Amino acid sequence: MSSSWGERIKISIFGGSHTQAIGVNIDGLPAGEMIEEEQVLRQMARRAPGQDPTATARREADAPRVLCGLLEGVTTGAPLCAVIENTNQRSKDYESLRRLPRPGHADYTAGLRYGGHNDIRGGGHFSGRLTAPLVYAGALCRQILERRGVTVGSHVAAIAGEPDLGFHPVNVDKALLDRLNGEYFPVIDPAAREKMRERIEEARKEGDSVGGLVECAVLGLPGGAGNPMFQGAESLFASLLFGIPAVKGVDFGAGFLAAYLRGSQNNDPFYYDEKGDVKTRTNFAGGILGGITTGMPLIFETAFKPTPSIAKEQDTINLPEHKNDKLSVTGRHDPCIVPRAAPVVEAAACIASLELLAQSGLL
Amino acid sequence: MSSSWGERIKISIFGGSHTQAIGVNIDGLPAGEMIEEEQVLRQMARRAPGQDPTATARREADAPRVLCGLLEGVTTGAPLCAVIENTNQRSKDYESLRRLPRPGHADYTAGLRYGGHNDIRGGGHFSGRLTAPLVYAGALCRQILERRGVTVGSHVAAIAGEPDLGFHPVNVDKALLDRLNGEYFPVIDPAAREKMRERIEEARKEGDSVGGLVECAVLGLPGGAGNPMFQGAESLFASLLFGIPAVKGVDFGAGFLAAYLRGSQNNDPFYYDEKGDVKTRTNFAGGILGGITTGMPLIFETAFKPTPSIAKEQDTINLPEHKNDKLSVTGRHDPCIVPRAAPVVEAAACIASLELLAQSGLL
Amino acid sequence: MSSSWGERIKISIFGGSHTQAIGVNIDGLPAGEMIEEEQVLRQMARRAPGQDPTATARREADAPRVLCGLLEGVTTGAPLCAVIENTNQRSKDYESLRRLPRPGHADYTAGLRYGGHNDIRGGGHFSGRLTAPLVYAGALCRQILERRGVTVGSHVAAIAGEPDLGFHPVNVDKALLDRLNGEYFPVIDPAAREKMRERIEEARKEGDSVGGLVECAVLGLPGGAGNPMFQGAESLFASLLFGIPAVKGVDFGAGFLAAYLRGSQNNDPFYYDEKGDVKTRTNFAGGILGGITTGMPLIFETAFKPTPSIAKEQDTINLPEHKNDKLSVTGRHDPCIVPRAAPVVEAAACIASLELLAQSGLL
Amino acid sequence: MSSSWGERIKISIFGGSHTQAIGVNIDGLPAGEMIEEEQVLRQMARRAPGQDPTATARREADAPRVLCGLLEGVTTGAPLCAVIENTNQRSKDYESLRRLPRPGHADYTAGLRYGGHNDIRGGGHFSGRLTAPLVYAGALCRQILERRGVTVGSHVAAIAGEPDLGFHPVNVDKALLDRLNGEYFPVIDPAAREKMRERIEEARKEGDSVGGLVECAVLGLPGGAGNPMFQGAESLFASLLFGIPAVKGVDFGAGFLAAYLRGSQNNDPFYYDEKGDVKTRTNFAGGILGGITTGMPLIFETAFKPTPSIAKEQDTINLPEHKNDKLSVTGRHDPCIVPRAAPVVEAAACIASLELLAQSGLL
Repeated sequence: MSSSWGERIKISIFGGSHTQAIGVNIDGLPAGEMIEEEQVLRQMARRAPGQDPTATARREADAPRVLCGLLEGVTTGAPLCAVIENTNQRSKDYESLRRLPRPGHADYTAGLRYGGHNDIRGGGHFSGRLTAPLVYAGALCRQILERRGVTVGSHVAAIAGEPDLGFHPVNVDKALLDRLNGEYFPVIDPAAREKMRERIEEARKEGDSVGGLVECAVLGLPGGAGNPMFQGAESLFASLLFGIPAVKGVDFGAGFLAAYLRGSQNNDPFYYDEKGDVKTRTNFAGGILGGITTGMPLIFETAFKPTPSIAKEQDTINLPEHKNDKLSVTGRHDPCIVPRAAPVVEAAACIASLELLAQSGLL
Repeated sequence: MSSSWGERIKISIFGGSHTQAIGVNIDGLPAGEMIEEEQVLRQMARRAPGQDPTATARREADAPRVLCGLLEGVTTGAPLCAVIENTNQRSKDYESLRRLPRPGHADYTAGLRYGGHNDIRGGGHFSGRLTAPLVYAGALCRQILERRGVTVGSHVAAIAGEPDLGFHPVNVDKALLDRLNGEYFPVIDPAAREKMRERIEEARKEGDSVGGLVECAVLGLPGGAGNPMFQGAESLFASLLFGIPAVKGVDFGAGFLAAYLRGSQNNDPFYYDEKGDVKTRTNFAGGILGGITTGMPLIFETAFKPTPSIAKEQDTINLPEHKNDKLSVTGRHDPCIVPRAAPVVEAAACIASLELLAQSGLL
Repeated sequence: MSSSWGERIKISIFGGSHTQAIGVNIDGLPAGEMIEEEQVLRQMARRAPGQDPTATARREADAPRVLCGLLEGVTTGAPLCAVIENTNQRSKDYESLRRLPRPGHADYTAGLRYGGHNDIRGGGHFSGRLTAPLVYAGALCRQILERRGVTVGSHVAAIAGEPDLGFHPVNVDKALLDRLNGEYFPVIDPAAREKMRERIEEARKEGDSVGGLVECAVLGLPGGAGNPMFQGAESLFASLLFGIPAVKGVDFGAGFLAAYLRGSQNNDPFYYDEKGDVKTRTNFAGGILGGITTGMPLIFETAFKPTPSIAKEQDTINLPEHKNDKLSVTGRHDPCIVPRAAPVVEAAACIASLELLAQSGLL
Repeated sequence: MSSSWGERIKISIFGGSHTQAIGVNIDGLPAGEMIEEEQVLRQMARRAPGQDPTATARREADAPRVLCGLLEGVTTGAPLCAVIENTNQRSKDYESLRRLPRPGHADYTAGLRYGGHNDIRGGGHFSGRLTAPLVYAGALCRQILERRGVTVGSHVAAIAGEPDLGFHPVNVDKALLDRLNGEYFPVIDPAAREKMRERIEEARKEGDSVGGLVECAVLGLPGGAGNPMFQGAESLFASLLFGIPAVKGVDFGAGFLAAYLRGSQNNDPFYYDEKGDVKTRTNFAGGILGGITTGMPLIFETAFKPTPSIAKEQDTINLPEHKNDKLSVTGRHDPCIVPRAAPVVEAAACIASLELLAQSGLL
């Protein structure tokens, strides 16, 4: 079992929905990096629940406490551990989850994996709440990246089939990324957000939920970062992105669309721009060739399944009685987590980018 | 730089298109496993070039030589290293690749990464030829899995937009998988293959290439295999699959489609079947919840970009002369690698499945 | 930089002498293991300072707070993170350490490594205080091991050249180990302890310090645990033991003495005992052959250098003034850390033993 | 099971005494490093058997064949795999080893670990022959280190209690290291070698064997290389050194002797030398404080047990007959492997030093 990731920038995430606290230990951050706490909290606020009429009404007080690794706001080079207290760790009704595993959740599979000893309260270690320390870790990495000219931003590319505009793959705009990475429910086209909200609201009213897509761009990565084969940029990013709960698909550049293209369309022609820099005229590669960055924007898309916790009655099994049964998930749940997932995807992109640079000797 | 993968089943792939030899070292295979060489060679033959009117006419003699790790055909528990000789390691014309990097290839990015010292002949370590040792490693793992009731098979799900039928996500048929995993250019519906061949042939005639999709299923994995977060089943599979050259997208179960579904559709209801086993009525999860197997078929899809080597003239840069230039890739190249990619995807699935079981104490 | 260790049982230690807190995250503990808190605290008390007239008079309140990973005292299989608050994290006088690095300490080398950004207060992340979370982690592993018939114990084998009796290498007595692993300043022969205390007291009076040896035994490990070469039992134990501050030597069985023996003396003859079990008549191998356990007691010795913090005036450099200077380390420091190091060595042995079993599929 | 080591410079050693071939795959060597083959062969010759009247009369033709990773003698950055053919892989009499495991060998423990499937011929994967690819890998790293001003050398510090002079810990002489690292059976004082040879010859005549010590120095490492705790320089070196067959002890600087010293003796006072460089007046730390290099010579000692293969009759067990039995190991075996072990220790030191620099961003 492992909630650890990375070779140079090692992050270990711990905790569960109802444990005393959750947190993250980060080993390998470069020493001497000033961390602006306010910017960290701004990223965490983007992920926090309860900001939107269409989101859950729960409130989290996610102010992380840094136990070590910072001295007067500057990284010391030693492991940095930050902890977020859970205020609601008492729970009476969780035993029903062990009895009636929720479809689409890890209740059943975790029970198998850990012989029924897993903490099932609120999803335990499998809870979406664990993305809070991930956003925290990403916010640190983001500041280190920005100091090196690397900007990460994302937008909700679709919800329930309702699309936003896409990034321009060649000319991703830094100002746009900076706007998006400061927003809750970031979209390129504000009109798209309204339509997405309607789809979410429709689902919510029916006790149902919807999924969606997040498109993310990393701007300013130098060419030549990455490795061949299994530690290529795609592998590195994907292994982290699939660690985000509810992610079921990841693709880079043209991605699945590339399966429909001709080579003459999908190949990105190289050219020297007026400054003499090497560029590509298109960017179907999403900034990665052979697992190594080209220097063009690194672009990928992540697919989120609909929130599995829904009020609608569902079929499930009754484990102690060993019979088929019905379940209606109570409590307040986001009918769509995608708006809050965008900063989580960005956090993963920040961590993966920093690891990529570190592995390639470019940090 | 790392062409190594895995924690319990560690594979290290080495070599390049024109080095003396290529191969793989596998550390961690369980001891006492009989390896049928003929079955290994059958898998390698599926990947070998030149089997098809639409494939390249090159011929490889890919008989691997096992240097160690087997004693009378049985694994000893010590590292198993197998080597495939390259017969065509002399090459005169590779310097042009350093001059004119091929669009869509790693020529340019590898040059950046390794300061121009990378072996560029035939793509070097980034060549598709490196999938031969991957298939070899997968063929060993496959035999170990089959002895434990696990079957892996795949089919070409689409080429140039021309689709095959899909797997039935709940009732994947073992007989079908066994048929597919013995075939070159495996498809469920033979009529689809004919249409795909037409698309490939059209592209070939125009000096162009096409991409496609491979859908793969792993049948018989027990429930409870996997880990939360970053070493979940999806992360494990994806990090290996994105190591296959030309893969630009991976999704599991409903995958990207999940972004269009409601929770009430995408959640797979649990039930007890007539034998008292836990099943799900649908399988949009692709057999994975919370990074852990459900016991239902594990299903994923992999997107391959079109072969970047095309005869059509393309724009590129002339590095020594520091100017824009033109390039037409000569030599014989597959106008579509997807048919040969299916056994490669299966190999990765076999390796990842064995690792998954080993990590979960289920081997 | 990495304060992480292990592949199956991953421990990450964080914090520094004067950070808000220190702690450890443990990923990979088997689920369903009851943890007796009292036994954990007993192990931590053995390491705590201020128990002895010859030890430092500082007081630590080392009660760890478990943030997650336990549910009603039972491991859940999720990462277990425990935190120990630092009560004395304010410190005025640490800047002198940056000016005048202490001989024998990491002040100077850490300054180089982290560009002067390292937290130097009380030694920072290099402080002996970091062994508290190590003992905590070891105490958990110890309980899991004991349930499987494995007992770990150690004694102070020498201080300032004053020796204790040694373990009987073949017939290590479980009752003896159980006595020792409950004691502060454990020795086999109580008379030896008195002589050692005299040596420590002599050094203390002179503002000096002394080093010593800890001999440790692991009883009850099954034969067949371990790996060849670089992940053999010796490598595994040594990599962890050398992570304990002040350890400068590790040997197994006859160890350095083996360099003086003949093969006919050092080879341990196998025989069947009356129960038909395989034993060796001697145990110069320390229970390990080829990196794999024999089933005989695993025995090793660890050398600790004298506490580098001494009151006696020492030569050092004045970094800002770039000149040679003098230093007398003030504050209360153990004139000998070896008595308190014994439980730390045992903790490392517990963690390494559990990892060894896990890697070998014997857990 | 793992014969792999390293994070940045990953080496995987494969093969056994009687497999078709043995070899090593090295992933992570910096690109653009010229490798002088002659110097590699010189290092391998130092380890080769049969050079000495007191060594075994077997002959190895250990010319490694580089399969990939070099282009015109220069590293490409891709994995470098080198293979050494075994010419004597046919063996009739190995089954006796499975019947009568040799005391002091891994025959018995490997049989337990791998369920009797291990290749037992000539010790299989546990054979000392596996140090040949280790020396090969070390010889590559040595050339890369020398280009960066780092020199590695060792001498046989003792055999059967007969000592050589030691390195001057502060003023290790580069010319001396260069002399030693070119010699078979390197000693500082040639007279010591004669006495050692007498001890070896005495043992040989009696069908017995002797052990010894190798002291090794690494000169020219910059200060500030290493990490705290478990990936400190000592942990890194020790985990590799204990992977060398027959090593039972490792210590750094004063090592075990530090247990007899006072702090005021063992602390190495810092001072500025006439050039303004930071030095220490003594070097009891062996060049490492807190796991990080000081810039002084890194010095360590490694203890080798006597060769377990001896002609003298020994007690052992008869496994198939489940009874106690006698064994006399036939064949030609070194009565002392220590002279040939010196280049192996140096090779490990070269690999560990390169990894240390790479991990610390100093390569």
